[in-house]
Amino acid sequence: MTAMDGLAGRLESEIELADRLFADLREHTDDPPGVTRASFGAGERYAHARMAALARELALETATDFAGNLYMTLPGRDRAAPRIMIGSHLDSVPHGGNYDGAAGVVAGMAALARLRAAGWTPRQDITVMGIRAEEMSWFPAHYVGSRAAFGLLPADVLDGCLRVDTGRSLANHMREEGFDPDALRRGKAYLEPAAIRCYLEPHIEQGPLLVKRDVPVGIVTAIWGNLRYKHCRVAGEYSHAGAVPRRHRRDAVLAAVDFVQALEEHWLERERAGTDFVCTVGELYTDAIHHTITKIPGDVRFTMDIRSDDNAVLLATRDHLTGLARRIAAVRNVEIELGPYTNALPARLDGALQAQLREQAARHGIRTLDMASGAGHDCAVFANQGVPCAMIFVRNQHGSHNANEAMAIADFGEALRLLVALLETLG
Amino acid sequence: MTAMDGLAGRLESEIELADRLFADLREHTDDPPGVTRASFGAGERYAHARMAALARELALETATDFAGNLYMTLPGRDRAAPRIMIGSHLDSVPHGGNYDGAAGVVAGMAALARLRAAGWTPRQDITVMGIRAEEMSWFPAHYVGSRAAFGLLPADVLDGCLRVDTGRSLANHMREEGFDPDALRRGKAYLEPAAIRCYLEPHIEQGPLLVKRDVPVGIVTAIWGNLRYKHCRVAGEYSHAGAVPRRHRRDAVLAAVDFVQALEEHWLERERAGTDFVCTVGELYTDAIHHTITKIPGDVRFTMDIRSDDNAVLLATRDHLTGLARRIAAVRNVEIELGPYTNALPARLDGALQAQLREQAARHGIRTLDMASGAGHDCAVFANQGVPCAMIFVRNQHGSHNANEAMAIADFGEALRLLVALLETLG
Repeated sequence: MTAMDGLAGRLESEIELADRLFADLREHTDDPPGVTRASFGAGERYAHARMAALARELALETATDFAGNLYMTLPGRDRAAPRIMIGSHLDSVPHGGNYDGAAGVVAGMAALARLRAAGWTPRQDITVMGIRAEEMSWFPAHYVGSRAAFGLLPADVLDGCLRVDTGRSLANHMREEGFDPDALRRGKAYLEPAAIRCYLEPHIEQGPLLVKRDVPVGIVTAIWGNLRYKHCRVAGEYSHAGAVPRRHRRDAVLAAVDFVQALEEHWLERERAGTDFVCTVGELYTDAIHHTITKIPGDVRFTMDIRSDDNAVLLATRDHLTGLARRIAAVRNVEIELGPYTNALPARLDGALQAQLREQAARHGIRTLDMASGAGHDCAVFANQGVPCAMIFVRNQHGSHNANEAMAIADFGEALRLLVALLETLG
Repeated sequence: MTAMDGLAGRLESEIELADRLFADLREHTDDPPGVTRASFGAGERYAHARMAALARELALETATDFAGNLYMTLPGRDRAAPRIMIGSHLDSVPHGGNYDGAAGVVAGMAALARLRAAGWTPRQDITVMGIRAEEMSWFPAHYVGSRAAFGLLPADVLDGCLRVDTGRSLANHMREEGFDPDALRRGKAYLEPAAIRCYLEPHIEQGPLLVKRDVPVGIVTAIWGNLRYKHCRVAGEYSHAGAVPRRHRRDAVLAAVDFVQALEEHWLERERAGTDFVCTVGELYTDAIHHTITKIPGDVRFTMDIRSDDNAVLLATRDHLTGLARRIAAVRNVEIELGPYTNALPARLDGALQAQLREQAARHGIRTLDMASGAGHDCAVFANQGVPCAMIFVRNQHGSHNANEAMAIADFGEALRLLVALLETLG
């Protein structure tokens, strides 16, 4: 048997199916520029319905858990054996791209379509999971859907996390969509780690590495964790830009500039020490209500997103920043409050699965690059539950979380081929 | 004759009058927090009407120029002699304090009330001027009213400056209030420098020096000029906070932080060189439309307000900043556009008038402090037209351009006493 004879040999009609699914998603969740699929909102609802409709066409078993995650299962020969899962999320950031999240679910469905078309029954069940609420731009909590599936979502997230556009709680939005936050509040799990043989997540690369290296597919070695501060604040004193000498000023912008500059210095030190580490101050702003060119600024808000593959590094950075804020506040005669933070744990991906992916890639002539994921993914939740995990990245132009995401369907086809080849190998 | 016998001896009823005027202004331009007297808006209109009503009670001559500046004149014995002018502006920043600007006009009117009550006719006319549109928070142009009075307002300011809240031009707002922007466009002057013996501007101090030194009254030695950039912009590239390594980032916040940090470094160098110099980045903000904690920021806007008593220093700073922007843009792989700027000239105040103020202060036991004004004032326009000028500062808590301005009426009384004493000396 040559590589072209197996399940992964001819995927033309599955690639065509994927193309149609992407077109449907784009058309029905269009919100120029880009698409909007709010967590527990209309766009996400459409995406789940579209995938469920396809599952019925393919005669898959479908189910929905307490949180609204969707499961579409191709039954295997041994229904009791731990299942293979393929998944990703179906929400998007506001005015985002069409592929972030959706590409993983579409790849899973296209793979199942291939198995159905080939009349191939796997040893164990294979389930494609459409995950809810992964994008933090709607609810300020990470991995809502996948944590909920394992019964790991804290009650305070259900009730305390408000959707940024509606101001209503996560529980409220779940209930509105017909799901059961009360079961989640009681810690009810839908997924059992022991009942999952492995979890595979195809996803577009959200950075430039595959583009820069001219490689269509990435094999992910680890998912970085993160530390996120959404509510940092510098409080100084508004005063007249001409009338207050330097030593009497309590300038919130200059203090914030000191802080961000010191944060970058810390980053450079981490880099020099060879640590995988990035940080981003994505929002930083004086208060528009007070905007006058002639006022010394008395208030600055900012956010921090800090990532590393090592949670000990993240926690050490947290402590460093606390001291930094205190020292700069004293020197600048302002108050600096970093506020609450969230900490998503880094995750190691499964070495054996990575080796199998590399082997299949070589066998099928698919060019791949080993790379870490600085971006977080639901996969990290599965990995931290002890499920062997793998991620396949697809080359994508212009990054993600913006309307200009551009994944070539030919690159998606290469990732799909690798996924199908892995499924065949897993049996 | 002792000090208490002159015109400046007993001012109880004039201080009471001033208190009533401040109360009327506060009540009729209340806009919590603080007061709002927009340039060519309702609050400014009320303030002008209130002063004109008092002028009629005092049987003063009143007139209005093309730009809506108000003149209230106590006729002197020699109507042809160059007149003494006392003035300040009657607009305020949005939600500002009750005293910035108004205190100077109220002091002038209280002084004329004193002269009327004493039956004292001066040698030459004394005119109190209520000036329009001094606060740059409404129209982004400096000294609109006083420049217009001298026929110095460029036509592009009349037509190109839009009020920030209405988006309509200065000319449009002037016409709406019944004034004549077409005359200004033809460069028609209402005031002739040669016809003004001197210009006196009482004003609250907008900084903390008089409070910190515990002195009620300041004698101003110079007015600093300024360089103002309202539309600075850093353009980088939005991308994913986790997925883009440091060397591929085009982070607009980090570039802006570099720039502001270098601006402060320049400030410190100026200070070490003994130069009078301050600078303020009063507005600095990422674009709220793109706000997501997980995005590398692609766009930052900021403003700069830079002040010195030496315009050569300001122009050298301008050139330095242009080079700085170019260098940081290259290092950070972003674009930095500083955009257009305005340059208000510094002004020297009249040495002889300062000496007379010091002499009268000593004579009347008024404690004063010599100080420069980092804040700009209409007085700078008069001084740069060759009119001998003086400014008297009144102690004020909490700075200005905010709702918490707090001038004690007793301190105002001391400044009024000094003003009346100077008028008596001038004859």
